[in-house]
Parts: sequence; C-alpha cells; structure tokens
Amino acid sequence: MTDRNIRLESAEKRAVEDQEVEIVERKGIGHPDSICDGIAESVSRALSNLYLERVGKVLHYNTDETQLVAGTAAPAFGGGEVIEPIYLLIVGRATKEYDDQKLPVDATALRAARDYLKENLPELDVGTDVIVDVKLGEGSGDLQDVFGEETQEVPMANDTSFGVGHAPLTETEQIVLETERALNGARYGSDHPELGQDIKIMGKREGDVIDVTVAAAMVDAYIDDMDDYIAAVDDVRAYVTELASEYTDREVNVEVNTADDYEEGSIYLTTTGTSAEQGDDGSVGRGNRANGLITPNRPMSMEATSGKNPVNHIGKIYNLLSTHIAETVVAEVDGIRDLQVRLLSQIGRPIDEPHVADAKVITDDGVTVTDIEDEVVAIIDRELADVTDITRRTIEGELSTF
Amino acid sequence: MTDRNIRLESAEKRAVEDQEVEIVERKGIGHPDSICDGIAESVSRALSNLYLERVGKVLHYNTDETQLVAGTAAPAFGGGEVIEPIYLLIVGRATKEYDDQKLPVDATALRAARDYLKENLPELDVGTDVIVDVKLGEGSGDLQDVFGEETQEVPMANDTSFGVGHAPLTETEQIVLETERALNGARYGSDHPELGQDIKIMGKREGDVIDVTVAAAMVDAYIDDMDDYIAAVDDVRAYVTELASEYTDREVNVEVNTADDYEEGSIYLTTTGTSAEQGDDGSVGRGNRANGLITPNRPMSMEATSGKNPVNHIGKIYNLLSTHIAETVVAEVDGIRDLQVRLLSQIGRPIDEPHVADAKVITDDGVTVTDIEDEVVAIIDRELADVTDITRRTIEGELSTF
Amino acid sequence: MTDRNIRLESAEKRAVEDQEVEIVERKGIGHPDSICDGIAESVSRALSNLYLERVGKVLHYNTDETQLVAGTAAPAFGGGEVIEPIYLLIVGRATKEYDDQKLPVDATALRAARDYLKENLPELDVGTDVIVDVKLGEGSGDLQDVFGEETQEVPMANDTSFGVGHAPLTETEQIVLETERALNGARYGSDHPELGQDIKIMGKREGDVIDVTVAAAMVDAYIDDMDDYIAAVDDVRAYVTELASEYTDREVNVEVNTADDYEEGSIYLTTTGTSAEQGDDGSVGRGNRANGLITPNRPMSMEATSGKNPVNHIGKIYNLLSTHIAETVVAEVDGIRDLQVRLLSQIGRPIDEPHVADAKVITDDGVTVTDIEDEVVAIIDRELADVTDITRRTIEGELSTF
Amino acid sequence: MTDRNIRLESAEKRAVEDQEVEIVERKGIGHPDSICDGIAESVSRALSNLYLERVGKVLHYNTDETQLVAGTAAPAFGGGEVIEPIYLLIVGRATKEYDDQKLPVDATALRAARDYLKENLPELDVGTDVIVDVKLGEGSGDLQDVFGEETQEVPMANDTSFGVGHAPLTETEQIVLETERALNGARYGSDHPELGQDIKIMGKREGDVIDVTVAAAMVDAYIDDMDDYIAAVDDVRAYVTELASEYTDREVNVEVNTADDYEEGSIYLTTTGTSAEQGDDGSVGRGNRANGLITPNRPMSMEATSGKNPVNHIGKIYNLLSTHIAETVVAEVDGIRDLQVRLLSQIGRPIDEPHVADAKVITDDGVTVTDIEDEVVAIIDRELADVTDITRRTIEGELSTF
Repeated sequence: MTDRNIRLESAEKRAVEDQEVEIVERKGIGHPDSICDGIAESVSRALSNLYLERVGKVLHYNTDETQLVAGTAAPAFGGGEVIEPIYLLIVGRATKEYDDQKLPVDATALRAARDYLKENLPELDVGTDVIVDVKLGEGSGDLQDVFGEETQEVPMANDTSFGVGHAPLTETEQIVLETERALNGARYGSDHPELGQDIKIMGKREGDVIDVTVAAAMVDAYIDDMDDYIAAVDDVRAYVTELASEYTDREVNVEVNTADDYEEGSIYLTTTGTSAEQGDDGSVGRGNRANGLITPNRPMSMEATSGKNPVNHIGKIYNLLSTHIAETVVAEVDGIRDLQVRLLSQIGRPIDEPHVADAKVITDDGVTVTDIEDEVVAIIDRELADVTDITRRTIEGELSTF
Repeated sequence: MTDRNIRLESAEKRAVEDQEVEIVERKGIGHPDSICDGIAESVSRALSNLYLERVGKVLHYNTDETQLVAGTAAPAFGGGEVIEPIYLLIVGRATKEYDDQKLPVDATALRAARDYLKENLPELDVGTDVIVDVKLGEGSGDLQDVFGEETQEVPMANDTSFGVGHAPLTETEQIVLETERALNGARYGSDHPELGQDIKIMGKREGDVIDVTVAAAMVDAYIDDMDDYIAAVDDVRAYVTELASEYTDREVNVEVNTADDYEEGSIYLTTTGTSAEQGDDGSVGRGNRANGLITPNRPMSMEATSGKNPVNHIGKIYNLLSTHIAETVVAEVDGIRDLQVRLLSQIGRPIDEPHVADAKVITDDGVTVTDIEDEVVAIIDRELADVTDITRRTIEGELSTF
Repeated sequence: MTDRNIRLESAEKRAVEDQEVEIVERKGIGHPDSICDGIAESVSRALSNLYLERVGKVLHYNTDETQLVAGTAAPAFGGGEVIEPIYLLIVGRATKEYDDQKLPVDATALRAARDYLKENLPELDVGTDVIVDVKLGEGSGDLQDVFGEETQEVPMANDTSFGVGHAPLTETEQIVLETERALNGARYGSDHPELGQDIKIMGKREGDVIDVTVAAAMVDAYIDDMDDYIAAVDDVRAYVTELASEYTDREVNVEVNTADDYEEGSIYLTTTGTSAEQGDDGSVGRGNRANGLITPNRPMSMEATSGKNPVNHIGKIYNLLSTHIAETVVAEVDGIRDLQVRLLSQIGRPIDEPHVADAKVITDDGVTVTDIEDEVVAIIDRELADVTDITRRTIEGELSTF
Repeated sequence: MTDRNIRLESAEKRAVEDQEVEIVERKGIGHPDSICDGIAESVSRALSNLYLERVGKVLHYNTDETQLVAGTAAPAFGGGEVIEPIYLLIVGRATKEYDDQKLPVDATALRAARDYLKENLPELDVGTDVIVDVKLGEGSGDLQDVFGEETQEVPMANDTSFGVGHAPLTETEQIVLETERALNGARYGSDHPELGQDIKIMGKREGDVIDVTVAAAMVDAYIDDMDDYIAAVDDVRAYVTELASEYTDREVNVEVNTADDYEEGSIYLTTTGTSAEQGDDGSVGRGNRANGLITPNRPMSMEATSGKNPVNHIGKIYNLLSTHIAETVVAEVDGIRDLQVRLLSQIGRPIDEPHVADAKVITDDGVTVTDIEDEVVAIIDRELADVTDITRRTIEGELSTF
C-alpha cells in the first residue's frame, strides 16, 4: 500500500474467460452511436489543439453530447439516394474568448466533424446527406485548465468519479474487437467498398462455443443485384470465420445479417454505409466503453468518455488510465489470468492521488496474489504518477475512446 | 432446466454487500440526464396511449434520444433569472399515419414533455426558461407492433439484446435510492421549496463505513442570504443522516455540496432547481439504469431503457423484467443473499422464450443452490410467461425506467 | 425651404382616389407574415423596455427577422388538431451584456413572443401547436444607442435610407383597413369566436366599383357542420358589406372565401385560426407596410418596419414618421386631396435633419400649392423636430408597424 | 381592348427620369437578403428540374422563405476567420412522394444551396463558415401542377395577385444595376479578389446630379494593410465613376464605404466577402424586386419572386412577365419614354387571361397614346399568350428574379 492508496486483492470469482456464459458487443465506427462518439472525440481533440495553438494551454470545454437524428434513404442496387438528410447536432461547452481574443470554437468544431465524417464514412456526402449543426455554450467561466505547452501540472479532481479497466481481453472480446477493426480497416474494408462502416458485432460464448453475429450495412453503389449482395455477405462470413480462428481454438459460428429475408427482398442495403440514413438515431456514450467494447460480464463505467476534456475530466481520464494500467500490468507481469483496475477520485486532491486505486486479480494456477503484489503495485504507482501522459496521448489522437 | 432455457447457478463470488469497496450513484430527477430520461419515457407513454386510443394498438415508435443543451442563468439570493434558455430536442421515430389517419405525434410529444416538466421541475418556466423542440422521423415503416387493447400477443424479438437485474439492494444502494426519493418527494421536498430537483447522490462504502455525498441545487427564490443557504444545506445533511440510519447500522458520514466555498461565495445556487440552467448538458441513457441506480459493482446493461417502445424493444423489456424477476424471487424465496438475473433474447423467437435466462445466486449460510432451485426456476418461468404485463405496466406509468 | 431641407411640390398626377384602377391589400394579424411582424415588433418593444429598466437606455438590437415554418393540421367540424407544430424562429441581434451585467434577452424575447401569441391567436396552444425558438446574436458591439430615460438626444443616421407616408387614405384603403380591424376586433371578432385571425382583405376598385375579397380562416371548434360554416361566411359577407357603406357611396361587392367548393367539401377551415397551421410559411416585412396596407398604386418602402430598433434604425423611424407627418398635415390643413411625404436620411447627420424631406401634394380644386405651402412646411418642420417622440410612442406600443 | 382585357392609358404624370428626386437601390449578390433570394431561387430551379426528371412534370412546391442568421467573424489584414458560423435555414413546402416514389427534395435543396454558395461566394467555406439547414413541409397535398415535358398547359390562377414591370430603366437605374453587375462580374470582380460580393449600391438623383453610394465588403485575405485597403476603395471609386459615364451625361459623384473611419481603423473588412459573417441577418423578398432594383419612385409589388413555384405562382409569373412585356414593348415600339405594365390575376381563370392588363405610358414629345396603342396592345397580347415561356425560362435559369 503506497501513498496513492493502491490496493490489490484477489477477485474471488472466476475469470470471465472461465464463466459459463459471456456476452460481448462492439458497435463499429459507422454505427450511429459510434459516429457520435467519434465526432465528439474528434471535436474535443480539435478544441484542445486550438487552445494549445492560440493560448498555449487547454481551456475549459466539454463536447460529449453530439446528437444524431436519423435521415431517410432509398437505397437501390447500383446506387440509391438519401431522401432526408441526417441531422447532427454538436452540443457542449467551450471557452470562446480568452484575454480579449475570440476563439473560433464553432468553426473548429464544424471542421473537425466534417473532416471526421469524410475520413470515416466516405460514402456520406457531408452537406447533403448530413447536416452538421452546433450549439456550444459558454459553460461556467471560472474554470480554467492548466495543461499547457510547458507546464503539465497535475490538476485537481473536481468531481467524485471513477474509471474501470480490464486486461487481458478474453478470446471472445478479442474476436469481437478485431473483427470490427479488420472489417473497417486495411485488412478487409479497404478492398471491399461494398461493405459499409455500420458494423455491429455481438459475441456470445456459451461454454466453448462462440457465436459471432455480424450486422453489416452494405453499400448499394457497389452491389448490382441480389446475387452480389449474397456474395458480399458470404465474403464477410468467410473472412470473419477465418479471422476468429486466429484468436481461439473454440468452436466459432458466424452469422451475418441474420435478419435478412431474401425472398421478400428485405436486406441490409444502404446508400451511405450507415443505418443513420434510415431511422437509427444515435448519441454519445451509449455504445462502446473506453476499451472499445460493451462487456456486461465486467463492471463498466456509465461515463461517456468521448468528447470530454482530457485535461480535467476525471471520469474520462480514469477510464482511459485504468484500462491502460490493466494492460500494462498484464503485459509486464506474468501469471495474471484476469485483472480489473478501478480508480476512484477524491474532490480537491490531485488526480494522480486517487481516493482508492483498487485492483482485483485472478492469478494463474500456481501463482498467488502475494507473489505479484509488489510488482503490480509498483506499476500502478508509476502509471498514476504519469497521469498527464494520458492527456497528451488523447489530445494527439493516440488513444481511442470508444 | 425448462423450455425457457432457465439456468440457475452459484455466483461463486462474494455478495456486493460483502465486498470491501462499493460504489453507488443516483442522479436525481432534476439532473440534466434524468430530465432527458424522464421526458423520453413520458413521451413514450404518451405515444403508446395515443396509439391505443386512436387505432387500438401500439404502433412503431422509439423516443429514446432526447438531447438537452444547457442554458445560462444568473441566480441571486431572493430570486435570479435565466439568461439563455435551455434547449431540449426530442428525437426519435414514430408512426405518423395509419390507415389514412394522421396521428398528432409531434404535438403529443410536446405536450407530454411540457406536462412532465411542469410537474417535476416546478420552478422551470416552460417556454421561456426552456425551449422544447421535436424531430420525430418516420422510421422503417414496415414494423408494426401488436400490443392491442384485446390481443396482447407475445411479440417476437427483433434484436439480440439482453437485460440484467439484481436483488436485494445493498444497504448502500437503498440509502442512495431512498435519499433521492425522499428529498425529491413528499417526505422532504414538499415542505422544502428551497431544495431544487437536481440532486446527485454518491454512496461509497469502504468496509463498514458509508460515505454519502449529496450535491443538491438550491433554489434562489427561497434563499434570502448566505445564512439561509447554510441552513438549507444543514437541513439536508441532518435529514439524510437520519434517513440513512433507517437502512443500516454501519457508520454513515453525510456530506452536502462539498464543492461550496462560502468565503468566495461559490455555492450551488440555481434559479430553476437544475444545473441544466447553467452549463450542464444532458441526454437519455447516460445516467441511472432501469433500477434507478448506477452500480459499477454489478453488471449493467448499456441499453437506454427510457423512451424505448415497451411493446417490442427487447432491451427495455428485458431490463425491466429481469429487475422485476430478481425482486420477485427474493421476495418469495428465503435464503438468498444476492441474486442476479440476466435475460438474453434470440432474434425471431417470442420474447417470453429468451435464448438464455441466466440467474446467479449467492445463498445465505446454510442454504444451497439446490435447496431453492426449483422454486426460483418456477418463479422465473411464471414471470417470463407474463412478460406482456411489463409492457402494460410501463404504459400505465407503474414502472420507473431510471 | 427651411434648414431641414423640406420641399413641397405638386405631385403632377391624379390622386389615387381618382385613378381608374386601384388595388389595396391587408394581411390580417393572423396571417403568417403578420404573425412574424407582430412578434418581431413585440420582441422589439420588450427589449427596449428591458434595456430601459435595467440600464436606463436602449442598447443596440435588431429583431426584424422572425421566420415562421408552417405546421400540419387536421381541422374537423367541432374541433380538429394540429399534427405537426408550427416552428417559429426569432432571429436578430441584441446586446447581452452591459457593464458586466448579463441581460436576459433570449428569455425576454421568448416571453414577449409567447404573450403576443396568447393574446392575438387565442386558439393556438403555445408549446404544442407552435414551437418558439430564438437565435439572437451579439451584433457589432461598438454601437450603443442613446435613447435614455432622461436624455432623449437625437441620434445620428447610420445608414442611407428613406421612408414614405401618405394621407388621406382612399375609400378603398379605408375599407380594407377597417374591415380587417373590425373583423379581428371588438366590433365583430369578440362575438364571433368561429372567425379566425388569419383574414386577408383584397380591395380592387375599377372606376366606381369596389370589389372586396375576404379570405377568412374559420375555427373548427365553433363550426359544427357545413351549414354552420356557410352561415359563418354569410355573416362575414353581410357585416363587411354593411361596414363598407360607412366609407363609400360607390358600389361595393363583397366576396368571402371565394376558393371554397362546398360540393367537394373544400373550405377554409382551421383548428387554430391561421393558415400557418397548414402549409403557409411567413416572415417579417413581407406583408403590410408601416401604415397597415399594401398599396401598389403608391410608392412604398421595402424596409421591414417591425422588429427594428426604434431609437436608431432610420428606415423604421422615417417610415413611421413620414406616415405620421402626412396624417398630421392632412388633419390640420384644409384643401389637400392627396399628400405623400418622403424622408431621405443622410449618414452622419442628426435624424431630425434629413437629406431631403420631400412632400408631393395634390390639392383640392381651387387650392394651390402656394396657398398651403407655409403651413405644410411648418408642420413638417415641427414634427421632424419631435422625431424622438416616434421612438417613445413605438416603445410604448402606441404606434402600429404593420 | 382585346379578350385579354388589355388597357393602355396615359400615365398623366412625369416620367421618373423627369422627376426632381429619384432614389434607386440594389443589394448585390453577396448581401444577406440577396443570398437568401439567390438560394431560394436556386433551390426552386433544382426542385423543378428534379420533378421534371423524375416524374415528367413540376409538382407542387414553394421555397421562398430562406432565413439567414448572421455569424460572427474576426477579419484581419492578410486573412481573418469566422468565429461563429452563419446559419441558413431553407424553409418551404415540397411534394416528397409521387406515385409511391420518394423524391429527395431535402437533399436536392441542400445541394442546390451549397452549389450556389460555392459559385457565388467563393470565400465562404460551406460547412464551417455557414451551416445550411432545411425544413421543407409537405404543404396542402391536393395541388398538382401541370407544367410537364410534353404538355405545357396554361394553369389557372389560384390566387388574386398582381405583378408590375417597367421600361426603360432610367439612367440612375441603369447605373445602379450595371455597377453591381460589373463589380461582381467579369468586368471587374474577376480580376479583383479583394472585392467581396456584398456590394450595396444606392443611387440618388436630384435634378441633374447623381450621387452613387457604394458599400463594398473587402476580403481580408487579399488586403495586407490599410494602404492596400485604401487603394482597393479608390479602385472601386474610379471604376464606378468611369462606368457611370457610359450611362449618363449628368454629373455623377461616387462615394465608396462612406462609413469608414481610417483613423479609428473602422473599415469595411470581411473574411468571407459578406456582412452576413458579422451581424447582418437576411431573408427572402426583402431586397431587390424582380427587375433587380428597389425603386420607390415606381409602384412595386411586395411579392417575393425568388423561390416561388414558376409554374403556378401567379405573383412570381406576373412580376416576371410584366417586366418582360414592358421591356419588349419598349424595344419594339418607338416613342415611349416610360411604360408601366401591371397584371392582375383572377382566381379560377387561365393565367394568360388576367383580370386586367393595365399599361400606363408616357410618350415622347410628338407621339400620342393613340399612335402606338394598337402596336402595344398586340405585343402585350402576344406575350400574355406565351406566358408559359416565362416558366420555362425561369426553370432554365435564364431569368433573374432579384
């Protein structure tokens, strides 16, 4: 036990990997909730950088409330169209003036959102398929943050909040996470323009059988007919099945677009690659947790991580930091089967001194908590001391928040 | 194991009540997130009733995306004012036409929101302190729900989703929940107009010491000066301290508005009773879970329960039902120290036949899982069979969703 | 010719009353354009009064851009309903902070709009039938107006603009103006709740025959069936026919709701008394000129008078003042058949010293311009000197702007 | 007098060219009101073309209500920035579904607006400097227009409305009109990127002296310092002075940006070329009439021409047609010093048969009305018969509406 009030104890339960039923979910980057997370975080980074450039330190802001109102579309083989645009409202607080200098926070937020959409949803025509609006209020002006270019002081916690992180990922978690990343990334997505970005992966493990259910929006411009569509779905299924085998020896069953009804022509076809074009609204903090997953088998924080100010929002920092600590400990210390790290803040104290840093470990057979305690506590202590690095890496876009 | 695939197993861990550290939170009805939850659910009930009245059955809708953009206020002892109004956007999907009959869904949603605000935030002048706007799209028109006046068929699950519930509440959970209800209800709030509705309760138990932290917005019109304010805070502290003793014999420490700084005049004073008047945005599904609490020590569903269609939204129904089942089992069966019920849907099957109904129990000393298994499974089976009762009670406003 | 550069000359044309064809129109207070005019001016007065109360002088603002987006309604005999609400956006500029004091301009604007709607459109339920939103920017902050409680200095013209006024009204003009006022006022409207406020009067005179075409929205709650409707239309026709005879000896033909088709059930029935409920958008400055009429036979200013700042907006002041001068001259001087007064501002000079005050007169037979010149010029000079009285009377609501 | 009820009579007054005082104004294409006019008309053309392409005829729509809410900018020599974006709301009605085919009216409107802004305001970055939003309702569905690819039937007038046109332009009118066109066009603007599009021209003639006052927004990115600015202003003055001499032998005095105060650094500098970036709101129909000018010396229609449906909106058609007729008559018939054409519709009759076509002429010395009557009436008759050509040319963008 150090000054930082770090506690390590045995979890006294079975590791998630060893539980009978496990459920894991990931909403891909084109899911309406993830679009909101992505824009909120992108706006946040842009504002941090704006403040650093203009005044040398990050000022008060919070942009964790993007709201997406779905549109209406008429997808069609070979290329359909959006009928009513998606409406996206960026909501939050930001400091608009500092030392008599006006700061273009609205324009910066709009540009960040536009750039994010163009990069991540290439089929979505910003300005006609989606309207981006912004309402950034001034917030309570007396707060001023201190993450500057030169001084990187540790700020005080201004709220009672907590964060929680886990490591290592279970096989099911890895499959769910990596499947979405591969489908939306260089390994698969880059060569398959017919696959939209709105991909939802649900993994369910019962004993040693893992069911992976993929809901994947297809893009009509690259799908000429039903045969094309079926082929596209088959490709995804084959790819995911193969990919999953990299992460597990368990039996894996992959289903793609199970709600389709080919007879009735009811399939998951979109014009823009996201269901936001037709009836699916979205908002920040409703989807993936800070580690990219929804894991009901594990404690989760309700806190929306995306869009929060990375300098002083304790919930954001502690969610990212606890995940980072768990991963680091597991990477550096042998013999850990499951580790949970929970950080609880204390109002008015520096954020590198949490009220409690509470780690629960399940060790491998033959390893005791005592065997690893010193090592684990030392790593936690070291990483807590380096808390402002989380802020820096978040601003630079190195850390994903959803 | 029944037809309904009900499983009961030992939780193989310590009950939350017996864990070393426990954290519990509740955002009161005047918290910006809760305002959104409350309006979303109120709009949902109003639409259900509109459809039942006009066409005899609940049609497709989903209103789980209310967004609140905070205003600006200038509170002052004796009565301040709102400078820039709160902006509240009701977002969702609703069926606007049926059998050539146009249905006033927008007007109904606006009326429900206005009525909800008037009843629950009496100091907020709807129309000047808050602008209520609405964007309800048409959704995918082919869905039609079947909860009618005569027929109450069990609908099919249209998504893979799950719900999770627990019972009984720990002492800390009871204290957090009941404190907010009492402060905002007949027991305290009715006689204390100076206490606003934006009350946030954080309970933290370490071993046998429970810290209850209350953040409570005071209403300026009823507070004449700093002495009044201090007296109001003291009243809350005394009341909560006393109330807590009804639920525990542990040591309880109560703190109210800890961020106040009387010297600098920095206190939690509001004009309308909610921090939404000054800088705190809100949205649906970001706060309390379906049982009214945020409980990081327990598995939670990310699903927003408020505002979802209670006829066919499987996430909503299963969150409410699993909580109801857990409470019912604990009420009827002796010897249970902690029970978690998790329901996982299966697309295309009736919702009273979940893919898995998965209960984890921690029994009292001297009681085994086998002792109670038949009884517990029978209750779960019975309550699953009665799933449409959850829909009915939600529409009638008997069940709280946040 | 005085210091004020006042010119009086003969119009050298026939008086409008003597022209062969004359067209006159008035949009009643419930017409979508007039609703916008009314709200813009009501907001303007409220802001003037707010500034006078709080800082003792009127600060910079301009609220002449209210936009109304029509709703959808389903009127029905005995009482229908609004399906999609009207959306009303108050647009403009206002000073939000003065001497470190924040001024509630948004809340004031919303309250003024709500009060105006409640008073003038009693069947419209604010908050459900109509959403009132506001976007007031800060404008260019360096302008500061000087109409104060004690000092009523004459401001400088900050723009080149002009105003134009006429007197006396022709018979057709009087009929059109007074018909709408009577129908919407104590003489008729108060006893006829079935008559909505959206009344449009078109007067067309060809020689000595005046056609008065009335389009009058009926309110469904007070109309039980087609017979009721026909009776209501007949009542209006009879009343207007009688009323017109008070103003002319010419032949008058009155038509009411000429687009009705009783066979097809196509009639002008509304739920709220205004066509804004169903498809008719509106905005400021598109309808009646400052004298309450649209008179293509006479020169008109394009300037929107409603909503402009009455202290320093030269277009508003000169439109109101030129009308006032024309009326005053005609009331005080005998022998004038038609008078037009036009005021042109000069940037940088006090507004009581226009670049040109240009009056064109048509005298009665036997009267020459020379006969009345001195008297007319003296009155114009006097009224120009008293220009700030226009500001005062506008703020106090004594002058109508549309 | 023909079947079309065409009347020609002597105006019995002095031609505007011969009156003592004349005022003429033109708001350039970058003026906030003109931006709204331009977008409204551009959206209108896009919808006409959408309907023609998809269903072979123009369906019901009206988009004459674009509202612009000004932004905030921080212009600076060498290049400033927009702080808060302009908000542009496209308002109107449009048919969204026809024969079970959904029509992308919102997306079409947004694309038209974006394209228009990009073409006409090159310094304005759509999406960050300006947010374009859209609210197009469904209108009263029973109207269906009949301007098709094959059939170009003459529609019936559905309203009592009138249009008015004049020819020839006076010297002052020509100078005002051509100055703005040249400054914003190939003759000057193309080589002068420092000149923004927000140019307002006020022409005032007293006797034989014409004052031309130009307010011209300069674009900061092309202006390095005050000397540059002064040079840019001088260039405009010199150019306009020279240009004016092409249209008149009268004395012409040109003033540019008279409100500038170089001492105080108060100049007309913008980042985007329009005052909409800083405090100047705008809306449709508040600026130039259909002939591109505001001419208080002449009768004007209050009707907003831009954005109206060119197939059946009688006010739009008659304003464009009366102007076209006046110009045609003056071009083909000698001896006319001033001609005004006024068309008044009659509900329920084909629009090529107006209730009155009322022309007032002032002839040159030595020419009588009788001399030219037959010729003039014949031309009016011929052009009325060809009324649908106005619709066609408007849709094809050949006719300017503001």
